[in-house]
This record gives sequence, C-alpha cells and structure tokens, in this order.
Amino acid sequence: MKTMIRNGIVVPMNRNMDVWPDGYVVFEGTKILEAGPVDGLDVAIIRYGGENGTGSDFQVIDARRAIVMPGMVNTHCHLGMIPFRGLGDDCKDRLRVFLLPMEEQAMDCELAVASSRYAVAELLLGGVTTVLDMYYFEDQVARVMDEMGIRGIAGETVMEEATCDAESPQEAIDRGEAMIRAYRDHPRIKGCLAPHGTTTCSPDTLRRVHDVDRFYNVPFTLHVAEMDYEMIQLRDSFGLTPVEYLQELGVLDENTVSAHSIRLTDEDIRILKEAGASIAHCIASNTKAAKGVAPVRAMHRAGVNVGLGTDGPASGNTLDLFSQMRFCANFHKNELRDRSAFPAAEIVRMATWEGAAALGLEAVTGSLEPGKEADIVLVETDSPNMFPVYDPYAALVYSAGAANVRDVYVAGKCLVRDKRLTGADFGRIREELARKMERTAFRDMKNLLC
Amino acid sequence: MKTMIRNGIVVPMNRNMDVWPDGYVVFEGTKILEAGPVDGLDVAIIRYGGENGTGSDFQVIDARRAIVMPGMVNTHCHLGMIPFRGLGDDCKDRLRVFLLPMEEQAMDCELAVASSRYAVAELLLGGVTTVLDMYYFEDQVARVMDEMGIRGIAGETVMEEATCDAESPQEAIDRGEAMIRAYRDHPRIKGCLAPHGTTTCSPDTLRRVHDVDRFYNVPFTLHVAEMDYEMIQLRDSFGLTPVEYLQELGVLDENTVSAHSIRLTDEDIRILKEAGASIAHCIASNTKAAKGVAPVRAMHRAGVNVGLGTDGPASGNTLDLFSQMRFCANFHKNELRDRSAFPAAEIVRMATWEGAAALGLEAVTGSLEPGKEADIVLVETDSPNMFPVYDPYAALVYSAGAANVRDVYVAGKCLVRDKRLTGADFGRIREELARKMERTAFRDMKNLLC
Repeated sequence: MKTMIRNGIVVPMNRNMDVWPDGYVVFEGTKILEAGPVDGLDVAIIRYGGENGTGSDFQVIDARRAIVMPGMVNTHCHLGMIPFRGLGDDCKDRLRVFLLPMEEQAMDCELAVASSRYAVAELLLGGVTTVLDMYYFEDQVARVMDEMGIRGIAGETVMEEATCDAESPQEAIDRGEAMIRAYRDHPRIKGCLAPHGTTTCSPDTLRRVHDVDRFYNVPFTLHVAEMDYEMIQLRDSFGLTPVEYLQELGVLDENTVSAHSIRLTDEDIRILKEAGASIAHCIASNTKAAKGVAPVRAMHRAGVNVGLGTDGPASGNTLDLFSQMRFCANFHKNELRDRSAFPAAEIVRMATWEGAAALGLEAVTGSLEPGKEADIVLVETDSPNMFPVYDPYAALVYSAGAANVRDVYVAGKCLVRDKRLTGADFGRIREELARKMERTAFRDMKNLLC
Repeated sequence: MKTMIRNGIVVPMNRNMDVWPDGYVVFEGTKILEAGPVDGLDVAIIRYGGENGTGSDFQVIDARRAIVMPGMVNTHCHLGMIPFRGLGDDCKDRLRVFLLPMEEQAMDCELAVASSRYAVAELLLGGVTTVLDMYYFEDQVARVMDEMGIRGIAGETVMEEATCDAESPQEAIDRGEAMIRAYRDHPRIKGCLAPHGTTTCSPDTLRRVHDVDRFYNVPFTLHVAEMDYEMIQLRDSFGLTPVEYLQELGVLDENTVSAHSIRLTDEDIRILKEAGASIAHCIASNTKAAKGVAPVRAMHRAGVNVGLGTDGPASGNTLDLFSQMRFCANFHKNELRDRSAFPAAEIVRMATWEGAAALGLEAVTGSLEPGKEADIVLVETDSPNMFPVYDPYAALVYSAGAANVRDVYVAGKCLVRDKRLTGADFGRIREELARKMERTAFRDMKNLLC
C-alpha cells in the first residue's frame, strides 16, 4: 500500500533544510519514496497512484494544512519513572534522599512495564517516534516498545550497587547482552547497555560495558558532567573532568550518547568532538534542578552532535519534546544575550536529525527523505496557539505542544490518528498503571512523602 | 441558580493556601458562596440545594478529578498583535525595524478588533479569566472583552509619536478617558490609560496620563526597565534608572503595574515596594528576547507584588499562562542555583492571587473564597501529561498546558465547557481574523518579510 500525505506545510529536515509551504510525502511499506513541494504533486500522483491517482493500493491523506515533520527523537528518557512524576519536585535533594531508595525497594518488573507502556503512549501522542531509554527490566521494556510500535533502544542500566533488577553489575551486563542479542535483527528495536554514570560505575564496569556495546555497535549512554558530587569526586580522585576520565578509560567513541553534559570545559568539548560522541541535551530537567545550561553553542561550533532529551518524568515531568524545544530556544538565547542565537530551525533539527544521528540512526530516521523509514508526524494548525504560521519552525518551537500532534506514523504504520492511539486504549493503559501503583511497596513509600 | 462543582482537587489559593484533594465550590449568580473540603459537602448540599440537594435552582457539576483553581490573571498583554505572532521570531532587532512601522501603517480598528476577539478566545480556552491589555482602539477592545465575557482592563496606549489610532498623546488621552468613563460602572470591564514606556512618552505625558488614571483609580501600566536603549537613555539624560525616573516624576503608586522590569537595582525594588507598585513579570517574552531574568526573588523578599504576563503574541507567542508558570519555575531556580526556590505553590499564586492584586482586583478575583466573583477553572487530569497528581500545584506548573483546560467560568457564567467556547464559534473568529489579515496593507508588509 502506498500512502500520500498532501496539503501540508512540509519541513523535511533534509540537508537543504527545505521548507515546502504546500508539500507532500509518499511512502510504501515502511519506507519513504518521495517528498517534495506541490509542483511535483501531479507527477507523483501518476507515478505512485496510477494514471488517475486512484490505484487500489494508493491512499491519500489530507494533512489539512498541518505541519508535516519527521518524527521526533528523544535521546534520553527513563520510561519506568511515570509513578514518580510530580513527587517532591521542589525538594533540595531528591535523588539520593528518596528516589533511589524508592526505586530499589518499590520498583519491580510489573511496575516498570506498566509505566513504560504509559510513557510510550505519551511519547507517541506527543510526536516522538524514537526513544533511547535507560532503566531497568529493559528486556521487558523492549517488548513493550515493540508492541506499541515505537522505534526504540532499550538501555539496561548498569550500576556498581545492587539495583531493583540486578544484584551486581555483571548480572545487569549479562541480562543486557542477552537482550541486545535477542533484538539484533529487529527492524525497530535495539538493546544496549547503559552504565548509570561516571561515579556510580567502577572503571572496570565502564570498560566492560563499553566492550559489549562496542561489539554489538549499539549506543553507550550514561549520565556525564551533571552532578556536583560527580565533578568533585572525579576531580579529587583523579584530577580529571568526567569527560577526561571517560577518555582515559578509552570508552568514548561515536557510539557514545553523553546525557546532560552540563559542565563541560572547552577541552571536554574538543575531546567529545574528536571521539565522535553525541550529547543528549535535557534542558528542562537540568534547569528545573538548577544545574545550569549546557554549552550547546560551543558544542555546535565545535561540530559536536546534540540531540534533545526529556529526561525521565520525575525530572522533566512531561515527555513533550515541544516544550524542550521552547526551553532550549529561550534558555540559550538568554544565556548568550542574543535573541538571534539558536533560531527555531536549528532547534527543530536537534529534535529530529541530530537526535537520530546521536543514536546512530541517521540513515534510518530524523528526516523525510527517500529511503528513510516513514516516521512522520502531522502537527495540526487549527488550535488557537497555532495561528498564524509564517515560519513552520517558529510555530513548532514557540507555539506548539504535544496536544497539537494529530497523526503519527512509525515505519509507515499509523499509530496516532486524530490525537488518539490507533492500536491501544490509553484509558486502559493508565488504569493498569494506577493499579500497579496501588500495590503496597510503592503506595506505602509514596505515602511517607505526600 | 446555585451551582456546585464537586469531586475536584481544589486549590482555592486562599490565605491559608489550603489544598482540598476532594473539594467543592458553590456559587450563585456571579459570586462564590462557599468552597471547602469534602467533609463539608453534605451540609453544603442541604444548605444550598434544599433538603435533598435537588432544588430546582441547584445544579451539580462533576469535576471528575479535575484540578479546580481560580481563573488565572494575565497582567500584561497586547491582544491586537495576533497577526504578528511568529513573524521574525529570531531576528536581532524587530521592534523598531519592522514591528512599530507595520503597526503604524497596517494596524487599524477592524484588524485590532478581530485580533482581540481571537486573543480573548485563546485566553479563555487556556484558563485565563482576567487580562490587562495595552494596545490601540481600546474602546473597541473593551467592547470585545465585554461581548466575550472575560474580565478585562482595556489599556489605551499613549505614545509621544503618532500611533495607528492617535495623532498626538492628547488625542489618545482624550479617547482613553472617554472609555474609562464609559465603563466606570461595568461589572467586569474597566478602561485605563497605558503610557507606552519610560522613554517613548515625555515626562509631561507621563504625568498627565498618571493624573487621569489616578483620578479614576485604574491601573497605570507601562513598560519599565526592559530595553537596553531605555536604560542608557535615562542614565545619560538624567543619571537615573527607569524606576528612579518614574519616582521623580511622582507617577509611582499602588495603581502602577510595571511591566517586565527586568533590570532593577535593589534601590529600585525598595522604591517600588514603598510606592506599593506591582510588577507584570513576562518571563517567556523576556528570555526569548535575551533580555535576562527579572529579580523576582528579591522583589518577593522585599514584599513587592508580582503577577505573570504573557506579553503580546509577537513576543511571548502563546497566551498560555501555564507555560509562563513553567518557565518561571525553571528560570528562577536555575538563576538562583537552588532547585527548592520558587516552589510550585508560589508560582500558581503569582498566576492568580498576585495577578489579581496587581490589577487592584484582590477583592474581586484571584482566589476561590466566599464573596469573590466566581472566576473558576477546571483543569482535567485525564490527559497523558496529567498523571499522577501528588501535588496539584506541581501538576499545574510542571505538567499542565492550556490544552488541559476543560471548563472556565467568569462571574459565574460558563464560557468554556469541555474545551470549547460556549458562546462563540472559534472557527468563525479565526476566519474573520484571517480575512482581515489578507487586506492589502497588512498582507503587503508581511510579504516583505516572509
């Protein structure tokens, strides 16, 4: 079946950064065949739809003036943490005070699965078609991603200390490696090992994880240069920045997805560039936690690839990449005291193309180009916040929100139509999660806090 | 007719900052009779609904676990500027390069009216029930506000230079004064004179405007300490900050709504406090324009009242106070390097109670308390971004958006029900505006830019 989406404002996010105020996209099976401006429409209809454009395997979707963009890529998330959203948002220190203890004692496979299903639904409904996750029970998270139809990389967290799903780092590595192998030939899902951070894994663990990720050519992702204690500990122990430390360990390369990476020196940026590493920039999470603004302009100038991430719902609250884009624009413009810095097009590129490149998926997704997978999002322009549209990039960054997402395709399959999931009942996904959250361990711990 | 809203998570924003996880609100005509937690529900039903709670003038609205909050107050807006939304968002300097020239040459009463109607619809659909506007043709804007049912103060802009609706400041003052008088006894609408700014009006004009606003006891609102050239010009001409300059002119008092006010000294804050002036804090607009973050913590510590404003749609893009709240939290936490600064409750208070107080409406709106007007907003918690809700303030600030607003009451009248306007057709409002924007003067100037 060939599908043509027409009558849209198309931002293909291709190398030319074309904008087609009246454009179309044609795809067949999982792949994009063609995208272009209205001038080519008649020829495309004949080429793909038969002489009169009504071939029995040809359907036309009227975008009705929606903005048609590539599916967005969330380069850093913790899908299992929906139960923690909104808990102690304004506390001085939550992570070690109650988030980690709660996770260790009250998180289990069933809760992680129910949360991940909810989170994937939220991502899809918000126009995110690809996600790199980092949490626990990731073999089951991968199954949920597969079921829900999203494109995803399931990152099994490895920590030195015991976690809710592994007594030792080796246990997490073994389980993660089995998952990587299980999904090796899957068209949409991959596994990877995700060491938690620079100070929460030993040097040896970081090296062993890297060896596995390298062997299978999957992302090596971890929290880097995010926390005060991390900066201090590595400086005091080794006299190194987190990036220098990772370089010394020999674990930085083009598979690296360095999350947060707020506190970087110029030398760190040079090292990251030389290694070919990418950044998962989580601006809303970082600034809500008062950690500062990562030096993205310097990274871009150095040629470092920077994707956007929502971080987990306990930190970033919504899984909405539109709000990340708007935060990104405002924080960087303000930080640089330059209102022309980070123009909207550059930010949409981070949410799509650069995100895909960060995850090693630049040949697969992140733009609407022939041969790529049909990961396509339609953002309606009917709602009050979406008029007028002079520049679709500006409308996406400064005005749009997840609630404006109308239709979502992943690998050519329509997963969201008219703002609803096509293949799942969101109400039931939510009820199931709420039920799991009412089990004793989680409920009791939560009640201690609220 | 008495109406009871029940089964909601009620944040009345009263002095106690009560939160009723299961609460109710009762109102009759335009006024709130009572609000409280579920414990008082049965007694309230008998008191207001007759013995069996089914009196013929008693209706019950099921909030279905929505968050029930006072209508929000937008303390700084330019309703007429919807046609400019998204135009040159990332330009280095727009205001004097093309916004002011376009306004002067292409803005007229019809376009301002069509835009204001659209903007009021957008505000209502986003849970804003009170707005202070500052633009042109405000006698007609006041009429639109009245028609649409919002609570509003129409501020006629006064500038030294000719504007699109007045050849001279005196003409604007005369027209504005006539409007103030026309709405003197209106239950929801007021007029006021709004001098454009500290350097765009002469000292004499500022004094004359102040005299009028003072005489009628209405807000005196203007742009203060916002622009580089403003700071430089007043320093070079008088050796004064904008706030010191206004104080010397004798125009600062408790009716002052000082918009933006980003670049304040400690002495400025002391002066504002002493005068009893309020601030309209427009964080998204200020940071998108790379102008910095106003020192709101210092203002709060000094006891200065700070409301929130979206600014006009050309600057802040959306008229959504939820995004302002989230920006407010993240920017101030990050600026202060303290994640516990500006807890969510403090921010919701700025969007409601402090906003009302800024406009001199603290006895009228801004909280759900007996005797106040029934300006009430229901924010649904069914959408993916709104689960779980442990702390309704956190959900409002970090998760919610305009799209979550379900029902809106102003002065007891339901203006939005199930996310739609009850008394107007949004599609027609939009069509009318689009038609006005296609007239030659506006269209031609826009085409020069796009």
